[in-house]
Amino acid sequence: MKAELVIIGTELLLGETVDTNAAFLAQELAALGIDLYYKSTVGDNWVRIIEVMTQALARSDLVIASGGLGPTMDDLTREAISAVANLPLELDQEAMKMIEGYFQQTKRSMSENNRRQAFLPRGAKIIANHWGTAPGMIVNIQDKIIVALPGVPRELKGMFTTYVAPYLSQRITAKKTLVSRTLKFAGIGESQLAELVHDELLNQSNPTIAPYASLGEVKLRITAKADSSQQAYELIQPVEQRLIHQLNGYYYGADHETLESVVGAMLRERQETLAVAESCTGGLITNRITNVPGSSEYFDRGYITYSNQAKVELLGVDPSLIGQFGAVSREVAVAMAEGARARAGTDWSLAVTGIAGPAGGSKEKPVGLVHIAVSAKGNTKAKQFRFNGTRTEIKFLVAQAALNFLRQEIKDTE
Amino acid sequence: MKAELVIIGTELLLGETVDTNAAFLAQELAALGIDLYYKSTVGDNWVRIIEVMTQALARSDLVIASGGLGPTMDDLTREAISAVANLPLELDQEAMKMIEGYFQQTKRSMSENNRRQAFLPRGAKIIANHWGTAPGMIVNIQDKIIVALPGVPRELKGMFTTYVAPYLSQRITAKKTLVSRTLKFAGIGESQLAELVHDELLNQSNPTIAPYASLGEVKLRITAKADSSQQAYELIQPVEQRLIHQLNGYYYGADHETLESVVGAMLRERQETLAVAESCTGGLITNRITNVPGSSEYFDRGYITYSNQAKVELLGVDPSLIGQFGAVSREVAVAMAEGARARAGTDWSLAVTGIAGPAGGSKEKPVGLVHIAVSAKGNTKAKQFRFNGTRTEIKFLVAQAALNFLRQEIKDTE
Repeated sequence: MKAELVIIGTELLLGETVDTNAAFLAQELAALGIDLYYKSTVGDNWVRIIEVMTQALARSDLVIASGGLGPTMDDLTREAISAVANLPLELDQEAMKMIEGYFQQTKRSMSENNRRQAFLPRGAKIIANHWGTAPGMIVNIQDKIIVALPGVPRELKGMFTTYVAPYLSQRITAKKTLVSRTLKFAGIGESQLAELVHDELLNQSNPTIAPYASLGEVKLRITAKADSSQQAYELIQPVEQRLIHQLNGYYYGADHETLESVVGAMLRERQETLAVAESCTGGLITNRITNVPGSSEYFDRGYITYSNQAKVELLGVDPSLIGQFGAVSREVAVAMAEGARARAGTDWSLAVTGIAGPAGGSKEKPVGLVHIAVSAKGNTKAKQFRFNGTRTEIKFLVAQAALNFLRQEIKDTE
Repeated sequence: MKAELVIIGTELLLGETVDTNAAFLAQELAALGIDLYYKSTVGDNWVRIIEVMTQALARSDLVIASGGLGPTMDDLTREAISAVANLPLELDQEAMKMIEGYFQQTKRSMSENNRRQAFLPRGAKIIANHWGTAPGMIVNIQDKIIVALPGVPRELKGMFTTYVAPYLSQRITAKKTLVSRTLKFAGIGESQLAELVHDELLNQSNPTIAPYASLGEVKLRITAKADSSQQAYELIQPVEQRLIHQLNGYYYGADHETLESVVGAMLRERQETLAVAESCTGGLITNRITNVPGSSEYFDRGYITYSNQAKVELLGVDPSLIGQFGAVSREVAVAMAEGARARAGTDWSLAVTGIAGPAGGSKEKPVGLVHIAVSAKGNTKAKQFRFNGTRTEIKFLVAQAALNFLRQEIKDTE
């Protein structure tokens, strides 16, 4: 089965939007063992959409279109599929019910434009959209398939994963499967990591190992090709074990795991609780911790003490410490962590104080300097870091280092 | 001049790489006033590269190819241009010198494969690459232009900006400039907004107006085409004024402005201060507020009161209120806001309490229910909202509604 993506939207040809849907769809198709040969992007222009869709349908077996399903006059994908497939648009009662249901549920009023979204080419199979108003569709034309999905990434991803992937997987006969597993490492740079596993990186064929650096972490993606997912996992497993063994201490999780989900799982298992005191990260750490479902089981509270007065009032930091060492100091980080743990009555606390920039730095205390402290009963440890980047990058790097420090401390008490 | 991008690289069809070059090139072309009509992505496959390049050359005046100029056998762009333009590859001495120079400068040893990169189609104009080894090229075929650049973003961007943009700008006769301005609206859905400005959306030609929905906000992009940026801005301005007037109350900012930057600017101008008390958003609101440089001037502290105990201890919420109405109630939101403002001694406070899910909902209080309160001296207001989505989407939607509520309240006291 040869697949082609048709990405529709003028915003993509004006460079206002970076297309993340295409990469998502490409990965999903690879996982299904479907070869993606072409991706075409075209604006919201009737003539060119028709041209690109006709070509895609001629040379590919599966055409996945994204975008152009919204309620406005710019949205032409329904009409274009109707034209190239020669199937008239008809009101789909099921689609209309879904759209009405969405508006009722979100208590918003439905406009006449939204009714347009319920018109689908005759015989189209509707794809429910639980994340927005525009239903998607699957249209079969002889032995070819057109799938149309909205361009909003969370809608497209939800609908593809829930409905389209299972549908396609039924249609595919005996193919090689690609399976990937991504190992994640914190507290180490890409080249240092690559040196530690140099031999593994050299001697790879199936599975392959590819290193990727992103902000504050490094990933190793192990990819195996086999007749079944099971066989692919069996090829991956020994390589994964060796890599984790060689990079012990830096490895924190795989695939969808994050530092906050890993820390959360450790705390939940130990039935221990956490309080956080943040200055320069301004709530990013507690925000990440509370992104994890069920975090209320172990996360009690956060103190976002941006002003010095707040550090004194909320955490009981001695004002003379701030006067003597400055708010960005090891001493204040330790006092923040100990104050947070004592006042919240939790098992653990994590505190950060630093300079996120772009202003506020000095020669002795430059932008990017941060002190992080972790406190447990009778034991508080602090570390100093220095990061480079924009304000939001520094905030992220500090949060990453803080969560990794906490992870290591919890692990060490096992 | 009609332009087309041809993006070459199997990694893009496997979803391993998100294509940021295309958005960059699209923006640059728009700034030059060149219309981009198509973008085609194809893998490192000889037959399909030739097919896509031939088609691009037939329907477009300017073809910009990226990728496939590297030293390995996968890299076929030089050969493909040679084939479609019918110009034999020849050793380019200038290209060879540049490649040798790059290796000398970076003190790396040059491989035989790198010599391949110095072979260009006859008559091609070389584009120097100061950021890597692969030279780019400009090939003229009658009145059409092919530009080939390496796929590494840093190299492509440097070469386009330094050499290709000036070249193209010379070639364009009576060029038009495209200028865009994006207006942002909160508290309104896409279709409701489209109805309110229905006539504006219908009667557009230059500037054009395009609506875009993203999570928790709607955007209107106004794009004008004119002989100069100045003239384009003059076309945009009256339309912008009319749209803002018709959508008054929902409009909060333009282009790179965010709700948090707009709220911050208002507080700074008034020299007023803010404290935040968050439950379900878990620090997302304070994180967004502190992403704005200089936010320490007006943001004093945040109370992330995840547990009921924390709401009582840190904000002085009466436990009997929680007992009677529940933690997620108008009464508790008001008490949180008033407690935060009183204890922090700030001019303003913002409080949210809700259920982010996926668990914790009930029939009376479903996932997505949230109460938001804004408190100023002698005046506290509260609103109830109901959102749909994943946990992180609900957190974002709550933060968006809370910041917008605060923005409206500050504005109303002007």
